[in-house]
Amino acid sequence: MQALGRHLLLELFDCDAEALNSLETVKASMVEAAKRAQATIVDVVFHEFNPFGISGVVVIAESHLAIHTWPEYRYAAVDVFSCGDVLQPQTAATYLVEQLGAARASVVELQRGIFLQAAPMPHKPAGARATGAKVPAATVPVAKVPVARLPVARVPVARVPVARVPVARVPVARVPVARVPVGG
Amino acid sequence: MQALGRHLLLELFDCDAEALNSLETVKASMVEAAKRAQATIVDVVFHEFNPFGISGVVVIAESHLAIHTWPEYRYAAVDVFSCGDVLQPQTAATYLVEQLGAARASVVELQRGIFLQAAPMPHKPAGARATGAKVPAATVPVAKVPVARLPVARVPVARVPVARVPVARVPVARVPVARVPVGG
Repeated sequence: MQALGRHLLLELFDCDAEALNSLETVKASMVEAAKRAQATIVDVVFHEFNPFGISGVVVIAESHLAIHTWPEYRYAAVDVFSCGDVLQPQTAATYLVEQLGAARASVVELQRGIFLQAAPMPHKPAGARATGAKVPAATVPVAKVPVARLPVARVPVARVPVARVPVARVPVARVPVARVPVGG
Repeated sequence: MQALGRHLLLELFDCDAEALNSLETVKASMVEAAKRAQATIVDVVFHEFNPFGISGVVVIAESHLAIHTWPEYRYAAVDVFSCGDVLQPQTAATYLVEQLGAARASVVELQRGIFLQAAPMPHKPAGARATGAKVPAATVPVAKVPVARLPVARVPVARVPVARVPVARVPVARVPVARVPVGG
């Protein structure tokens, strides 16, 4: 069983309100997090809301990082969606917890795009890059991948520990992140 | 207990490979999905990868919609992250399932930013809009919201049905989406 993507969902509580309300801080933290995760940055889009809050996305060749901040609640929701084996999404998560001063955090990992296949599924062919070049649809080889038909109900969800990260004590990178397969 | 955001994670399988490989189709579908969900579009960013695949984000005032497509596997991962009571994320989900020709799909909803509070928490003050104007951090009122301290382990995860949507038969909108609270 192979998954095309890993999706970390971070809940950052009791953050530094000033950091969460600074477009510069949030943007720089997200871009640096992407770099530290070894991501290839394709686009960076951030917006500041009036009176509070920042929303932003770092589009990477391996998917995306997204953040929405609520300085008034000292809360931020972060997504780190990555593909391939090179990326280190946990590194990005750890860095963001530190930069935004989250005193409490939790992280859940969802596996996206699960297929029944023993061999690894490269998210993009080697050398893939963002381009404006179009590929005629007729040339798209539809992979003969046996699609996972495992009913979700068979996944022992109750046994999957949702990682609760006491940030002050344990670096996120050390926490065994819960892996919850989605769909199929 | 109030959640700041609703996050729908869609797994779209057996899609129309041609649609998934068309920048125009994917982009138009995502923008239209945001509009149908009553979202306020702030930014639209899409990229085409060589040789296959589209990645894109529609930043909305109420958070974001994101998509990553694998035409070669006829698969797309979609996120619809929304805040507030006005938005209808299920409408966006249903529309995307149809537009991308997904023969199979599943959807999981995660609640983001859960706080212990009886009153609704507006995601942004009324009249909020994207702006370049800065608000001095010192003026940010940190809400006196009792943060949810319910241990995640107490959430009866096993009882939360992960919605499996036989798209051909049941419109996504009719499926009671699983709500899995995250963090706290």
